[in-house]
Amino acid sequence: MQLDTDRFLHDLQSLRNIGRYRTGVHRPTYGADDMASRHWLCEQLSEVGLEPSIDGIGNVFGRGPAAGPRLLAGSHLETQDYSGWLDGALGVVAAVALARAGLPVDVCAYADEEGHYGSFIGSRSLIGDLSEEQIDQARHKSNGTSLRDALESAGLAGRPRLTPDLSRYKAAIEMHIEQGTQLERANHRVGVVTGIVAVQVWRITFEGQQDHTGGTTMAERRDAGLSAVRFLAQVDSEFPRICGDRSVWTTGRIVLEPNATAIIPGRAVIDFSFRDLSREVMDRLQACLRSLVQESNRRERCPATLELTSELQPTLCDPAVLDAFSLAARELCPAHWQKMPSGAIHDSNVLGRRLPVGMLFVPSINGISHHWSEDTSEEDLVMGMQVFARGAEAFLAKG
Amino acid sequence: MQLDTDRFLHDLQSLRNIGRYRTGVHRPTYGADDMASRHWLCEQLSEVGLEPSIDGIGNVFGRGPAAGPRLLAGSHLETQDYSGWLDGALGVVAAVALARAGLPVDVCAYADEEGHYGSFIGSRSLIGDLSEEQIDQARHKSNGTSLRDALESAGLAGRPRLTPDLSRYKAAIEMHIEQGTQLERANHRVGVVTGIVAVQVWRITFEGQQDHTGGTTMAERRDAGLSAVRFLAQVDSEFPRICGDRSVWTTGRIVLEPNATAIIPGRAVIDFSFRDLSREVMDRLQACLRSLVQESNRRERCPATLELTSELQPTLCDPAVLDAFSLAARELCPAHWQKMPSGAIHDSNVLGRRLPVGMLFVPSINGISHHWSEDTSEEDLVMGMQVFARGAEAFLAKG
Repeated sequence: MQLDTDRFLHDLQSLRNIGRYRTGVHRPTYGADDMASRHWLCEQLSEVGLEPSIDGIGNVFGRGPAAGPRLLAGSHLETQDYSGWLDGALGVVAAVALARAGLPVDVCAYADEEGHYGSFIGSRSLIGDLSEEQIDQARHKSNGTSLRDALESAGLAGRPRLTPDLSRYKAAIEMHIEQGTQLERANHRVGVVTGIVAVQVWRITFEGQQDHTGGTTMAERRDAGLSAVRFLAQVDSEFPRICGDRSVWTTGRIVLEPNATAIIPGRAVIDFSFRDLSREVMDRLQACLRSLVQESNRRERCPATLELTSELQPTLCDPAVLDAFSLAARELCPAHWQKMPSGAIHDSNVLGRRLPVGMLFVPSINGISHHWSEDTSEEDLVMGMQVFARGAEAFLAKG
Repeated sequence: MQLDTDRFLHDLQSLRNIGRYRTGVHRPTYGADDMASRHWLCEQLSEVGLEPSIDGIGNVFGRGPAAGPRLLAGSHLETQDYSGWLDGALGVVAAVALARAGLPVDVCAYADEEGHYGSFIGSRSLIGDLSEEQIDQARHKSNGTSLRDALESAGLAGRPRLTPDLSRYKAAIEMHIEQGTQLERANHRVGVVTGIVAVQVWRITFEGQQDHTGGTTMAERRDAGLSAVRFLAQVDSEFPRICGDRSVWTTGRIVLEPNATAIIPGRAVIDFSFRDLSREVMDRLQACLRSLVQESNRRERCPATLELTSELQPTLCDPAVLDAFSLAARELCPAHWQKMPSGAIHDSNVLGRRLPVGMLFVPSINGISHHWSEDTSEEDLVMGMQVFARGAEAFLAKG
């Protein structure tokens, strides 16, 4: 194996220049810069001897000629809006580096991991878990553009969707930034991922009465925003009492309608999510959420409805991949690595439904991710790449 | 005086058809439909013998030829987005009806009462309280278009702004829908307004750290949205303890950044307002708000800043106008009228800085306003118009 870490860093910088925003990038799915990054990847794939293609959902695939045991490696190219340069990009470039080093690896950039149009539509399509009807129905989460229209604009409409024979692969592996501060705090340079947490995303909608703020007395109001605030304050006091050690819960999105200073909100929509590795803890958090909605409906004049918008089960990483990565980390950066769960969801979660999976983390400076200031030191990127490559090689060698 | 209530109702319906949306209207300031409504008004003004003009801020003015004591009457033509057909329109059409009935009335449709581009820019311009620099700086509250660009697009750029000699008027009067349920609940058909409440609008901004929801432990987070929720829950428990009988307070607008399900909000902006007729109560509410921000800053990891974005002092209606309207109401609908403060702010608030003012309310069905379903029964519209006209005539006659 001939790993070229200089070229690896150079490729990361090349990709960073496509859709650059301050020190990060802005490559929303199927936009011009996202598509440019997909074409850039095709060039790299050709160069390393893989046959490149972009399929009907936007997955970029590099297929190797060799028979025998192979790995599937990759991540995603598009980003959240005005976001970081490494989230996704690192895993794609690291996969190319493995192939460039001569390892039998097929490379995939799974489309829209960031969920502009849905939930993991790229990796789900690859494993055959995305129907044409689901594509028909998918729309952009904020501007409402249909996925079909977006694919049409990107020049992808009508192309077949690739569903490779997964029996070809011993495992699917992914390198990624941690998106947290555990490695940094422990002064560790590599994290070998034990599993990916479960996640549930709920939408809670409060229906009130839109009205003028001056003409409606407090007693008469049905202020949907106020009911939402009271509900979220209850979540804030109840969840800490029943959560697990590493549970997280977040209100990432609040939409008041009409969201105007002088108008009482007639409707409030909350996107609330929580994560944990343990199914038992997840069940407890869900039960608490349900009872708080019930309580709100007994107390408030704005009825709340609760809807599960997405759910992912926990994924445990393959023990053999985990061992291979651990051994490589122990050799290359002794005492500066750890095993850890992934709090963030990745395409590996979807791939884990059909393939053994493994993931490797490198530190995120200050834990920052999904923001243009996201970064990782060059030394950590190189160390991570070396552990990733040696681990992949060792795993493949085990036959 | 020859009041034509059929024509009054007909004019209201004609205006309703300009920018119609369901049973309401959508006439945002300076848009095509708003401008069409201004030109429609000019035609009505010509017809009733007033000299029409549209000035450099969009105020439509109808100036009468007669010398001697006159009234200024009017309201506004533009609406909130997808809003009601009577808010503003009623006062403009009622003013035209007074002129049509032969009363010495100048009519004005004050531009942008609804505040798409600022705070009462039309009425402030008319009384000489709006500088060119303020126009330079004003931008659309949500899309950021500059007021100058909007005036240019509407064909108003370069026109002089009208500032009539206010000594010409004995008072400024305005008919309006109540935008509340007090009249309806009391089975009253007319409300004689005693004064317009004071209002303060505050912007509270919480600065946190945008981050991935999965990779950041609860202990590490600086969730600006969560700090905002905790603050608003405190307001919800403290304000009822110190408010006046008729105080109202509202969070009309919450903006999380980036407002995405999977991202911890790095910033939260709240537009919070409160209203009361009493200066003492207003001072108490302001002091409470300030202390809650201080408390939040002692407790939370996301610092909050507090900024007064607009403030209006209370306006008391002119006793002579109030008496004239009261007498007319007592004659025309005995036992079905009341005196009441206005919880909503109107152009009369601005005009009250320079002129005696008076206002008359008619009921809002179910209290609904700022929504397309806003409505008032035809009988109440006619009764209000009759009281408005008789009151205006009596006030003028008092010499």
